[in-house]
Amino acid sequence: MQQTIQISTPTHNGLYDITRQVEAIVAESGVQTGMVNVYAQGATAGIMIQENWDESVQNDVVTLFNRLVPAGIWEHDHQDNNGYSHLKAGIVGPQETIPIVDGKMGLSTRQNIFLCEFDGPRKQRNIMVTVMSIEPS
Amino acid sequence: MQQTIQISTPTHNGLYDITRQVEAIVAESGVQTGMVNVYAQGATAGIMIQENWDESVQNDVVTLFNRLVPAGIWEHDHQDNNGYSHLKAGIVGPQETIPIVDGKMGLSTRQNIFLCEFDGPRKQRNIMVTVMSIEPS
Amino acid sequence: MQQTIQISTPTHNGLYDITRQVEAIVAESGVQTGMVNVYAQGATAGIMIQENWDESVQNDVVTLFNRLVPAGIWEHDHQDNNGYSHLKAGIVGPQETIPIVDGKMGLSTRQNIFLCEFDGPRKQRNIMVTVMSIEPS
Repeated sequence: MQQTIQISTPTHNGLYDITRQVEAIVAESGVQTGMVNVYAQGATAGIMIQENWDESVQNDVVTLFNRLVPAGIWEHDHQDNNGYSHLKAGIVGPQETIPIVDGKMGLSTRQNIFLCEFDGPRKQRNIMVTVMSIEPS
Repeated sequence: MQQTIQISTPTHNGLYDITRQVEAIVAESGVQTGMVNVYAQGATAGIMIQENWDESVQNDVVTLFNRLVPAGIWEHDHQDNNGYSHLKAGIVGPQETIPIVDGKMGLSTRQNIFLCEFDGPRKQRNIMVTVMSIEPS
Repeated sequence: MQQTIQISTPTHNGLYDITRQVEAIVAESGVQTGMVNVYAQGATAGIMIQENWDESVQNDVVTLFNRLVPAGIWEHDHQDNNGYSHLKAGIVGPQETIPIVDGKMGLSTRQNIFLCEFDGPRKQRNIMVTVMSIEPS
């Protein structure tokens, strides 16, 4: 099964929890043992597995990337004004592949799946979800 | 085939080589051509492919992440005292997916698979290993 | 289907676009719905999905990693003179797994696949490409 999640991102930088949407696709697929690939289109966003206890870690991720990749000093900033957005997305990467165990994702209690927006706001971000089945051992 | 590796991590930060354990699961699966997904549970650890010639690169990884993500300055540090651990894990990511060629992982000579512990010591870290077969070309 | 791409990398650091080569393997496989795993051998290179509008972002990636991981200060630099190369490769990671939709990779318009060379020049870098099919929903 393969489906696309669409979300809007009202902030310039921010983490958006898409765990529930991915869970729903995995459940609908009926796959009991396998993997699910979560892939964000666009070269200024990424997918990160991160704690979702409250919003503090999400805020810290934004702060960290602003610190590691300051805006305004990159070659592409002078051309398209979002070189720093591409660099942040390049470090995070567009995808994670997560095991499916007994019909559910093998996330630990507080591991959630986030779209990292680094060049918002955007009316629509597309995240492709691909579910694969394997034979259980 | 899907199995879980369990290891203990006696240090607060450190890289732990799990290559032999993953190799054993791939061998037991009998898969000749395919992929293996290695996924660490817990939002303060990650999976990194890295050289294992001696311990210098592993030490350098710990030093680098302490430098990029200093402890004590993050919002979540004031709540749960491990915001920096989550941030390090978020950069590394919880998983890698590795090709299987002729029944073995397609790692080069010195590429090994490490659990990166960023919030130890822990009595038990769980790493889920999922092996998939494809038809050879 | 599983095939290996071989490229040479004439620079010490640099991004090399391998999108066309991966596309050709996906097309040859005939897979309509599935995933493709792109994996770089060698612990001083990585795979990054990044914009390829012009060369500015690629240059910025090299500049960023030189800034985050300065040469000469790492334990492994004193042994093999390429500790910084390993650290850069460890952050980027050796692989990306990309969905296949209607027989083509689900990359957005400007998302391209790059080998990141961090310890060149090299006469030969090997990138393993593994294509998997799933049942469409």
